[in-house]
Amino acid sequence: MSELAEELRRELDRYSPGGKLPSSRALVERFRVSPVTVSRALAQLSAEGLVITRPGAGAFRARPRATETAAGDTSWQEVALSADGAAELVPRTVDASGVTVSLAAPPPGVLEFNGGYLHPSLQPERAMAAALARAGRRPGAWGRPPLEGLPELREWFARGIGGAVTAAEVLIAAGGQAALATALRALAQPGAPVLVESPTYPGMLALARAAGLRPAPVPVDAEGVRPDLLADAFRASGARVFVCQPLFQNPTGAVLAPARRAEVLRIAREAGAFVVEDDFVRRLVHADAGPLPRPLAADDPDGVVVHVGSLTKATSPSFRVSALAARGPVLERLRAIQVVDSFFVPRPLQEAALELVGAPAWPRHLRTIAGELQARRTAMTSALALHLPELALPHVPSGGYHLWLRLPDGADESALAAAALRAGVALTPGRPYFSAEPPAAHVRLSFAAVAGTGEITEGVRRLRAACDEVL
Amino acid sequence: MSELAEELRRELDRYSPGGKLPSSRALVERFRVSPVTVSRALAQLSAEGLVITRPGAGAFRARPRATETAAGDTSWQEVALSADGAAELVPRTVDASGVTVSLAAPPPGVLEFNGGYLHPSLQPERAMAAALARAGRRPGAWGRPPLEGLPELREWFARGIGGAVTAAEVLIAAGGQAALATALRALAQPGAPVLVESPTYPGMLALARAAGLRPAPVPVDAEGVRPDLLADAFRASGARVFVCQPLFQNPTGAVLAPARRAEVLRIAREAGAFVVEDDFVRRLVHADAGPLPRPLAADDPDGVVVHVGSLTKATSPSFRVSALAARGPVLERLRAIQVVDSFFVPRPLQEAALELVGAPAWPRHLRTIAGELQARRTAMTSALALHLPELALPHVPSGGYHLWLRLPDGADESALAAAALRAGVALTPGRPYFSAEPPAAHVRLSFAAVAGTGEITEGVRRLRAACDEVL
Repeated sequence: MSELAEELRRELDRYSPGGKLPSSRALVERFRVSPVTVSRALAQLSAEGLVITRPGAGAFRARPRATETAAGDTSWQEVALSADGAAELVPRTVDASGVTVSLAAPPPGVLEFNGGYLHPSLQPERAMAAALARAGRRPGAWGRPPLEGLPELREWFARGIGGAVTAAEVLIAAGGQAALATALRALAQPGAPVLVESPTYPGMLALARAAGLRPAPVPVDAEGVRPDLLADAFRASGARVFVCQPLFQNPTGAVLAPARRAEVLRIAREAGAFVVEDDFVRRLVHADAGPLPRPLAADDPDGVVVHVGSLTKATSPSFRVSALAARGPVLERLRAIQVVDSFFVPRPLQEAALELVGAPAWPRHLRTIAGELQARRTAMTSALALHLPELALPHVPSGGYHLWLRLPDGADESALAAAALRAGVALTPGRPYFSAEPPAAHVRLSFAAVAGTGEITEGVRRLRAACDEVL
Repeated sequence: MSELAEELRRELDRYSPGGKLPSSRALVERFRVSPVTVSRALAQLSAEGLVITRPGAGAFRARPRATETAAGDTSWQEVALSADGAAELVPRTVDASGVTVSLAAPPPGVLEFNGGYLHPSLQPERAMAAALARAGRRPGAWGRPPLEGLPELREWFARGIGGAVTAAEVLIAAGGQAALATALRALAQPGAPVLVESPTYPGMLALARAAGLRPAPVPVDAEGVRPDLLADAFRASGARVFVCQPLFQNPTGAVLAPARRAEVLRIAREAGAFVVEDDFVRRLVHADAGPLPRPLAADDPDGVVVHVGSLTKATSPSFRVSALAARGPVLERLRAIQVVDSFFVPRPLQEAALELVGAPAWPRHLRTIAGELQARRTAMTSALALHLPELALPHVPSGGYHLWLRLPDGADESALAAAALRAGVALTPGRPYFSAEPPAAHVRLSFAAVAGTGEITEGVRRLRAACDEVL
């Protein structure tokens, strides 16, 4: 169908605006396709505004849209958009650049060491297509789901957390970012401080700032957040929220040490504060990882933890299905904000998620990516050790999709990123991961978004050239 | 498949926890289904946590989940969730009740005069299922779409607005409510006033309050918002935003009169303010409507209008695809907030939207609902005139899905709503539509969510009984 539409699109110049196209029958004969195909192709062009179809009369080339001149004056908006700034406790800043850097497609030929998602070859494309098709055909698939999400899907997420968490304590949300946005807006008022790990995921910083919050950093080492500094930070800031990634932290890859888990919960509890647990890569574990620590939320009877889990990282960027889990009055606050802001997650996506995780292919998929990610991580760490010994890798993670490298003293990470791009590899500079002054220059290298270990070796070779140029 | 899963679920009690289920081969023979069906059913039960499958060993009844007692103490949250209240200019209130009332399913046997969506029989279920299945199978369907949305879909929405609006000025969003949330957060800071029509859609009031804004009412009459009062309200409040529905307003059904359109734009422009145009039912027009006025955004060279259009009302509640259109610097503000809050709309939904509106069935669907809605509106107005003459209907709309009725002086709309529910019909009381004191008691009756004109006549009969009881 799209081929015929493409063909007709190319031919449209032959007709004058308003001119009649050949009849459907003539098109059927000429292109040797069915009348349905012709009808669909014309509908497609009609949807694009290129063709006008008049029942009984035929199809006509559309006249160019009236080019009403767009000569308006929008400069007044600069005043309007800055108005009321003086009334604000903390000016909201909305800067999407920390997010878009991991969402934009790289230029052709550039190896994607900056991607936050699995390479298409690692995505369960067939299983997702099948799940979606089945979901869309279920009777009532497009109707209103329960506002909190499908019960079976809530149950599945609750089981993934473990502990005493029940389906009733889970809300389905539209991807991890949306769940974090809901959590931050539910837990903190504009102007309030919020503690974040340092370094941390730039999307978290962007969310906090867009909500008018003041992110305050708490340093992370190879064993996760430092409890002594966390206690200090609660005291100094008066914050009521601490956002963290206890498992395979982004960007360091750190796992919160067993001894620190109870400490973090106790400190937050004593501060009368919530812990937002962004459990973002629990399903992106490497084959050699061994048993994982369970989520903090599983050890939290008092409702300190608001847990965010997601299916996106283990599937595909557009599989935007996530869950918020919480216990106590905060659950209603989360639910109300989510309902008011966006109603609910489209039912077909929720049904597709259930189909996908219930299919026999799902555990196979998880095993496959566990093996692939281990192989890629090993390929990248080996190549780096061999060819780029001056980049320090303090921690080799056994989960997640990236490495966090410290540059030699005095190195300029922006210059390195620019040189790398010229050499044909995109990487992520470390600066946006710090809410305050960074202790050193860093880069983050992802091994999930490239086609395979061959691209990893080639990418490290290109990085060598970039380092030779600027370090 | 689900039947077999259902059957096995019922039988699970026969096995002790940890006990082995019959082999797959035995299940194939006993239920006369294929091995694939058995495998799927077991996977389903496994996803539900009822069954454990061990490759090579078989399937076992799962042990009940460790019932770790949930005896924690969450009462500290009441303090935490109210903290920092004193620092706020305007306490945010998050009350989802104005939204949930139109999203909840009515009790069985109750006629749904309170629904905000088309009855399932009016939804293009087959076309949506086909569109979704095709969308999910496209190569790359699950990958990252452009952050602003698919270009063809942006073009389709731009064309629907008309005027000089281009695809580059359109952002795809996740349904009308999400688009409005983005618009309000982009245009006004916490603590700022925002002008709203009076009465207006309760979901708008809930959104404004959740964003920490102060809604200020501007009265609407049968010709839409009153320009003299709009100018007064801008002066009195210092607001920089006015939210309105110029076409078939919710709840009054009013259409902004031609003479008032330029007035509204001029007044907003002079106040240095934005107009958020919620064009929510442009595709729910009745067959007898005649030509529609075009959106305000089509006559707005200076970027005063932020336009919200959506596919949801004309399709199905879960078809959550909408668009924001704006011109000038505000477009980047809208884009950044949307990207930071939720990244992007899942690509399969966007592709499905394109498939749907490009299909030959789409214009047929719109014609069908135009005829159906006219017939239902006529049935309802006739039945009301005949059986409930004491309810005043100041305006009979030719678009949208509801009527707005004024109750006799001194009548209690809550008592009427309760009596109506006892009589078997759910209606919407008018109070939540007013941001300040209402001038009179009202109810809103929807004619879209019921099965047909028979239910409309029956519902009005039940309303007669309720009125006899309480008026």
